[in-house]
Amino acid sequence: MENLTNLNKEELAKTKAELLKKYKDYQNLNLNLNMTRGKPSKEQLALSMPLLDVLNSSSDCTDAYGTDCRNYGELLGIKEARKLFGELLGTSIEETIVVGQSSFNFMYELMAMAMLKGTLGSDKPWSKYDKVKFLCPVPGYDRHFTICEFLGIEMINIPLTEDGPDMDLVEKYASSDESVKGIWCVPKYSNPLGVCYSDKTIKRLANLKPAAKDFRIFWDNAYSVHAIYKDIQILNILDECKKAGNPNMVYMFGSTSKMTLPGAGVGYFGASKENVEYIENQLKCVCISYDKMNMLRHVRYLKDIDNIKGIMAKQADILRPKFDAVLNTLDEELGNSGAGSWVKPGGGYFVTYVGKKGTAKRIHTLCKDAGVLLTEPGSTHPYHKDPDDSYLRLAPSFPSLDDVKMAMKVFCVAAQIATIETLE
Amino acid sequence: MENLTNLNKEELAKTKAELLKKYKDYQNLNLNLNMTRGKPSKEQLALSMPLLDVLNSSSDCTDAYGTDCRNYGELLGIKEARKLFGELLGTSIEETIVVGQSSFNFMYELMAMAMLKGTLGSDKPWSKYDKVKFLCPVPGYDRHFTICEFLGIEMINIPLTEDGPDMDLVEKYASSDESVKGIWCVPKYSNPLGVCYSDKTIKRLANLKPAAKDFRIFWDNAYSVHAIYKDIQILNILDECKKAGNPNMVYMFGSTSKMTLPGAGVGYFGASKENVEYIENQLKCVCISYDKMNMLRHVRYLKDIDNIKGIMAKQADILRPKFDAVLNTLDEELGNSGAGSWVKPGGGYFVTYVGKKGTAKRIHTLCKDAGVLLTEPGSTHPYHKDPDDSYLRLAPSFPSLDDVKMAMKVFCVAAQIATIETLE
Repeated sequence: MENLTNLNKEELAKTKAELLKKYKDYQNLNLNLNMTRGKPSKEQLALSMPLLDVLNSSSDCTDAYGTDCRNYGELLGIKEARKLFGELLGTSIEETIVVGQSSFNFMYELMAMAMLKGTLGSDKPWSKYDKVKFLCPVPGYDRHFTICEFLGIEMINIPLTEDGPDMDLVEKYASSDESVKGIWCVPKYSNPLGVCYSDKTIKRLANLKPAAKDFRIFWDNAYSVHAIYKDIQILNILDECKKAGNPNMVYMFGSTSKMTLPGAGVGYFGASKENVEYIENQLKCVCISYDKMNMLRHVRYLKDIDNIKGIMAKQADILRPKFDAVLNTLDEELGNSGAGSWVKPGGGYFVTYVGKKGTAKRIHTLCKDAGVLLTEPGSTHPYHKDPDDSYLRLAPSFPSLDDVKMAMKVFCVAAQIATIETLE
Repeated sequence: MENLTNLNKEELAKTKAELLKKYKDYQNLNLNLNMTRGKPSKEQLALSMPLLDVLNSSSDCTDAYGTDCRNYGELLGIKEARKLFGELLGTSIEETIVVGQSSFNFMYELMAMAMLKGTLGSDKPWSKYDKVKFLCPVPGYDRHFTICEFLGIEMINIPLTEDGPDMDLVEKYASSDESVKGIWCVPKYSNPLGVCYSDKTIKRLANLKPAAKDFRIFWDNAYSVHAIYKDIQILNILDECKKAGNPNMVYMFGSTSKMTLPGAGVGYFGASKENVEYIENQLKCVCISYDKMNMLRHVRYLKDIDNIKGIMAKQADILRPKFDAVLNTLDEELGNSGAGSWVKPGGGYFVTYVGKKGTAKRIHTLCKDAGVLLTEPGSTHPYHKDPDDSYLRLAPSFPSLDDVKMAMKVFCVAAQIATIETLE
C-alpha cells in the first residue's frame, strides 16, 4: 500500500473517505471483541487438565526429599519444586524459593518489605527516605508500575530498545542518585514490546555501580519458556551479577501461570543464597507456608525441563495462528503505510503497536466504538501516561482466531484513520 | 494428692527426691517427643484425602456463578466460596473475601497495608505516626505478636480471663490513646488458653469508642467449628459492631487449615461491605487473583455448614483422646497439688498450663532434658516475654496418643519439681 505520508490533500481525503466507509461497515456488524488481557484461551487451559489427575486420594503426598506436603512446614517451598524451578531460573536449590499462586504478589511482597524493613544491605527501610525511585523501561508491564504507584515510589521512564533498556540512561540514573533503588525488567519477550535483552545489555545491568548499595533489579522472567516463533536464549543475570561482584543485586521471578492454569499455579523466585536467607528471615514473620500440595502437583505434572518444553510447544501451537493473524494483518494493512510500527516477538503474550505521536487514544476510541476493546492507552507507561500517546498493547491469546482476525481488521482501519487525522 | 504448698521442709525434700528419681527414670528412656506445634496428625490429614478426588481432568471447573476457575479473575474469590465461607463467618457474599492458602498471611497483608497506606477512615498511613500500638490479650498466639514486632508496632499486654480480654483495660487504652490502632482477638477456643469470649465481652468490644477512628479489631476466628468437647456459640462480632454504629471496626479471619490440609487450604475474610470495597481497591494493586481452583475444590468438598460440622466431628474424634490424655494426666498428677492450673477448653488445638510464677522456663528445660520438647516459654506473650514466667502451651494434636501420654507424665513430674524448687 501507499505510504499515507506521501499522499497529497485530495488523496488523503479520498483514502479517509474509503476508510470511514469500511469503518462504518464494521460498526454495523455490532462486534463485541476483547483484546485487552494476556489471558490464556480455553484451548490452552484444556491442555493443562491432566494436571488435575496428578494427585488423588491414593497418592503418596511426600516429596522426593521426604516432606509430607499435606502439613505445615517448608516455608521456602518443597525441595523438589525448588530444584525444578531453580533449573528454569538457573539457580541452585538454596538460591530458589517457591511461593504461592502468583509471582506478581511476591514481587509486591518484596517491594513492600523493602519499604517497611529494607533489604539485605539497606541502611534503613526504603520508606524512611524522602524519595524512592525506580527505573521503568517503557513500554512496560502496567502491573509493575501499579506496585510502585501504590507504594509511592517515583517512576522514571527508560526507553526500551530492541536490545533492552537504554543502558546509558540506566547507568546514569543508577550511579548518580542514591534514591534510585532499582529497575523493573521483563528480559525475554518483554511485556508488551516483545523484545529480548541482548547479552551486552544484561552484562551492563550486572555491572552497574549503583549509588544505592541496596539497589535491586526486579527481573520478571515471565516468559522464560514461552517461545512462539523463536526460542531465544538470554544470559543468566544472577551468574553475570556474581561475575561482576554484585551477587545480591538481582531478584528473579517466574511462575507457571502461563504453563498450566493462571492463578492456580506456583510462583518462584531466585536470588543469591544470602538474599534468600535474608528474605527467609523476613518471611518467617508473615507466612507459615505456601501451598505445598500445589507445588507437588506441579512438579509431578511438569516433571523436567524437557517435558516443560514439550508442554510449551503445544501452548505455542495454539498461540501461533493468533500471533500470525495479528502480525500478518498489520503487515498487509499497515506495512509501508507510515501508520505505526511493531516488533515481531519471538514469543510471549503481546504485540505492541507503536503509532504516530498522538494517535493511540484515538485508535483506542475508534476501536471501542466499533466493538473492539483494546488495553487502555497509557497502560504501558508509569502513571498511565504515555508522553507520545503512541503505544497500544495487542493481546491476541484469549479471543478465538476468527475474533482476532476481525479485531485486527478493525484495528488497522482505525489506525489508518487516526494517522490520516494527524496529517490533515 | 497433697498440695505441695502445705508440705513442710522435710516432706518437700522427700517428695522432691521421689520426683527426681521418677525424672531420672524418664531420662533413661531416651525419649524424643514433640509437643510444640499445633499441627494436625497424619490420621487427621488422612481424613481429608477425598479432597484430592473432587477435581480431575473431566471436571467442569466453572463455579455455580459461571466463573471459569482455571483462568485469571475474581480478585475477591469465586462467589461460590465467598457464599460458603461467608456463612461460616456470618457475612454476606459482599462482606466476604476468599484468599490464598493462609489467613495468617492475609492478616499480615492487611496490617502491612495499614502501615503503608492506612485503612478506610485513616488520616494517614499508620507508619506515619510516631508510634503505633496494638492491644494483645495474653496468653495469645505468637504469630500475631510476630507480625506486630516485625512491623514495629508496640504491643500492650491485656490479661485474658475466662470471659475474654480484660475489657476495663481494653476500654481504657482504646479510648484514651489515638496511637492504639487495634486489638488481636482469638475469640473461640483461644490460642492457647482455650477460652471463649462471653457475649458481654463481645458486646463491649463492639461498643468501643476508640480514640483512633481507624481502630481495627483483628478477629482471628481460627477455631470457629473446631469443637472437641462442647460446641460453644459466640456472638457475631460484625453484627454487634453494626448495632453499635461501628460497622467498619472489625476484620474477621478464618481458614480451612484445620478443616482440610494445613497450608493447602483457603483463607477467608469478613468485614463490612465498605471495608471490603476499600480493601479490594488496595488488593487490585498487589494481586491478580488467588487460587480459584483450590477454592472450587474446597467448596465442592466441604459442601455446606452441616457437612463441615460432620467433617469437624471426625476431626474431633481423633483429637479428643489426646486432649483427654493431657487433661486427665494434669488432673491426676497435678490436681490439688498447687502446681499450676489450666482451663479445660471446649475445642481448639491447645491446653495452656499456668504454673507458679518463675517455673515455666524451668519446666521447659526439665522436659527438654528428658526428651520432651514444648513450645518455647514466653511465646504466648509479646516480645517473647512472659513477665511471670508461668505460661506453657501444650500442643497434643501431632504426636501419637501414646506419645502424648508419655510426654504428659514427664511434664507433670517436671512441673512438680519446678514448683517445689520455688518453695524450698
